[in-house]
Amino acid sequence: MADKPRRPRAETPKGFRDYFGAEVTERKAMLDRIAAVYHRYGFDPLETSAVETVEALGKFLPDVDRPNEGVFAWQDEDADWLALRYDLTAPLARVAAQYRNDLPSPYRRYAMGPVWRNEKPGPGRFRQFYQCDADTVGSASVAADAEICAMLADALEEVGIPRGDYVVKVNNRKVLNGVMEVAGLAGDDKDAERGIVLRAIDKIDRLGPDGVRALLGEGRKDDSGDFTKGAGLSAEQAEIVMGFTTARRDTGAATVARLRELVGASVIGSEGVDELEGIAALLDAQGYGPDRIVLDPGVVRGLGYYTGPVYEAELTFEILDEKGRKRQFGSVAGGGRYDGLVKRFTGQDVPATGVSIGVDRLLAALRAKGRSTAESAGPVVVTVMDRDRMADYMGMVGELRQAGIRAEAYLGNPKNFGNQLKYADKRQSPVAVIQGGNEAEKGTVILKDLILGAKIAESATLEEWKDRPAQVEVPRTELVAAVRKMLGQ
Amino acid sequence: MADKPRRPRAETPKGFRDYFGAEVTERKAMLDRIAAVYHRYGFDPLETSAVETVEALGKFLPDVDRPNEGVFAWQDEDADWLALRYDLTAPLARVAAQYRNDLPSPYRRYAMGPVWRNEKPGPGRFRQFYQCDADTVGSASVAADAEICAMLADALEEVGIPRGDYVVKVNNRKVLNGVMEVAGLAGDDKDAERGIVLRAIDKIDRLGPDGVRALLGEGRKDDSGDFTKGAGLSAEQAEIVMGFTTARRDTGAATVARLRELVGASVIGSEGVDELEGIAALLDAQGYGPDRIVLDPGVVRGLGYYTGPVYEAELTFEILDEKGRKRQFGSVAGGGRYDGLVKRFTGQDVPATGVSIGVDRLLAALRAKGRSTAESAGPVVVTVMDRDRMADYMGMVGELRQAGIRAEAYLGNPKNFGNQLKYADKRQSPVAVIQGGNEAEKGTVILKDLILGAKIAESATLEEWKDRPAQVEVPRTELVAAVRKMLGQ
Repeated sequence: MADKPRRPRAETPKGFRDYFGAEVTERKAMLDRIAAVYHRYGFDPLETSAVETVEALGKFLPDVDRPNEGVFAWQDEDADWLALRYDLTAPLARVAAQYRNDLPSPYRRYAMGPVWRNEKPGPGRFRQFYQCDADTVGSASVAADAEICAMLADALEEVGIPRGDYVVKVNNRKVLNGVMEVAGLAGDDKDAERGIVLRAIDKIDRLGPDGVRALLGEGRKDDSGDFTKGAGLSAEQAEIVMGFTTARRDTGAATVARLRELVGASVIGSEGVDELEGIAALLDAQGYGPDRIVLDPGVVRGLGYYTGPVYEAELTFEILDEKGRKRQFGSVAGGGRYDGLVKRFTGQDVPATGVSIGVDRLLAALRAKGRSTAESAGPVVVTVMDRDRMADYMGMVGELRQAGIRAEAYLGNPKNFGNQLKYADKRQSPVAVIQGGNEAEKGTVILKDLILGAKIAESATLEEWKDRPAQVEVPRTELVAAVRKMLGQ
Repeated sequence: MADKPRRPRAETPKGFRDYFGAEVTERKAMLDRIAAVYHRYGFDPLETSAVETVEALGKFLPDVDRPNEGVFAWQDEDADWLALRYDLTAPLARVAAQYRNDLPSPYRRYAMGPVWRNEKPGPGRFRQFYQCDADTVGSASVAADAEICAMLADALEEVGIPRGDYVVKVNNRKVLNGVMEVAGLAGDDKDAERGIVLRAIDKIDRLGPDGVRALLGEGRKDDSGDFTKGAGLSAEQAEIVMGFTTARRDTGAATVARLRELVGASVIGSEGVDELEGIAALLDAQGYGPDRIVLDPGVVRGLGYYTGPVYEAELTFEILDEKGRKRQFGSVAGGGRYDGLVKRFTGQDVPATGVSIGVDRLLAALRAKGRSTAESAGPVVVTVMDRDRMADYMGMVGELRQAGIRAEAYLGNPKNFGNQLKYADKRQSPVAVIQGGNEAEKGTVILKDLILGAKIAESATLEEWKDRPAQVEVPRTELVAAVRKMLGQ
């Protein structure tokens, strides 16, 4: 009892992080642009709460069989288990079931917000991150899938990824299922094998064809010596599956023709090829050619719940990885058709398709391309030379703000003027306003151009700046106009 | 094992809710406007994660193993207790301590986002709701408090509350402490009594002067028969305190003079009056007169952690309450100076002041005034008469979207055309586009003006609409122009 309580640690919980200033506004600007595209496509916003019942979240955790693992969960007083949502799809499925009599059908909705994963954090891997989803619930038509692909292309261009720097790849799970049927992997008892095949193909970019072949067969030992059990296919079976991953041809029509050969007599496979052909035709009619959207059998998407078309947006420009090697930026969004998620609640089939944009990866891409557009201009800083005239300084700030200029007075201890300029520097202030006793008597203020000042300090020659002085003295009454001029407005 | 698992319930967890369409965009539009004001004042955004350590939140009670009631908490694998934040101030205090060497000082930041309370939900009381805060950390100057009050007034006007419909009331805890000193309530041993006095005054709007007097004395029995213990003041002591609550005069200067009388020789009280006077002078200099910001000793704010100036924004227009009686809308925002929160972490005094806007209440106020500005226009709906020509319909939708017009095709089962028009109605669609086989042959489309159609159905006379037909047939090539015209664009 007598122990003095120790001070709490001021620390972000492990795996979580804080976002400051431009990090917040850049993300917001990007999401606003995406939302405008979604809106134009007729999608309505939906915001569910962060908390769901574990029951509603179900066991549809990516690649995990046991419920609850991977989520932050706790027991309510009523003994109900609650958890933080781990994606935006599970809450949508719950909403689509809960409000099925009130929502328009089909229901197009978009959602943006954080999701939480109770996973081991790593470099760049956080336990809270943003997702940005758009889904159409209640339409079995491939027009819904095609529309999402077109919308994804539009959204990427809207945020600043130019045509040519991205491609949306489209495939169909049914085609893969047809190919697996041909390879002798049909039937409920082959579920585990099909799962292994799916995950193996999904890793082809990272493991290469030989790595995938190993996983299709007996298994694969990775660089660390860990062994991953394979699907146990024979070499012939494996080649049929491998043929699928390389079925992409120069045109959509040629790819479709090749896929028709591969699925042979499989009913489900033919259905998948028909759907791909339908999507391609719809996109063509809307002018989304192969410069934006292509059929690519190499894309399978890892998630188990997809039932038809799957799609993925890849950025094709090169960046340098952490070891300085050139590589393609890669995937920033993906999705597909999942006809089983709402059925969990209602028992009835409800077709649905949708996409999720990886917000942080897309932001990183925009930064890599220098295309992040958020304004990060610091405020004009009005310094305080005489603490008794604080009302005067606040009056100046008030005038600037009224004029729409971002401005603030220095509100720390004004004793040390150097600290005030250091503060202005830290705030990336473009202009400092100074009024000492002399200026007050004369009815003037001094404006320091801090951006120009920094440039002069860098280039060490005044020659090129001689027509643009870094400091001016102007009548107090002309404060706003003079600041505007210095800001180049 | 053989039991078929029952279907999960599709239910929002108790006390949580979902937000649809315009509910989301209206809130977003309001927060965007507030953020623009905060930005102009030099405040930077900060986004912390939803999860904090219970230790950082300060929710461990002495001698209690489990976190305090009121938060959603769970134990991490590492045995650390984590919890969802219950406000935006505690995370700011943590951030201010954690990054104290990197942040500018003073640090102006704003934050917007959900907070969570593990409390019994009730009508209109949810366990997740939005807050919108702005705080200045590291400034002891009353200029920081005055600035927040001015910014609050600007923010209210910016979102659509006109001058005259709101007032920001300013008071100072030190004045109240001085008055309590005069009433003989100084000293550490009177802490509990001072807390009761504070909470009693905070309830004056609801309980009236007699109710407050009862709580200052022996206590008060409420309508339900429950008894609340009072502060045990004598009648004389209580009158000194009551005098404080009615000290507001017609002008700020007169209020200040009256408060000086009340605090008498109390040092802390005089300091508080000086601060109030300083705030009033600063606000006057910036043109924020008593039509916007007033000194009002009746405002004390319930929270224990305030140490100096406190402020509250009230909306003064009348609304009808649930019983149909007129009443003032009341408080939508409040805050004050809290110099002790960062000290919890660092042991050093860090002065801070800030405001929190009650997002849902302010939104409700805007709706009550008919001032909510979010666009809620439904999309143009292109109907599907012939499922085989889906590509044609999607082509029309694509053209409309390219032209910036919100549009969608009907993606449900197109068999029943009545369902398509019902869908358009549910979507609040302004225009339906129809192209059957005849029109396709002729190269035309039919546009139905659904807004006009609804009006005609209501007024049951075509007379007034005769110059504006509810349905037109136009060449397919003029689709976009004709839709624009019908939308009045």
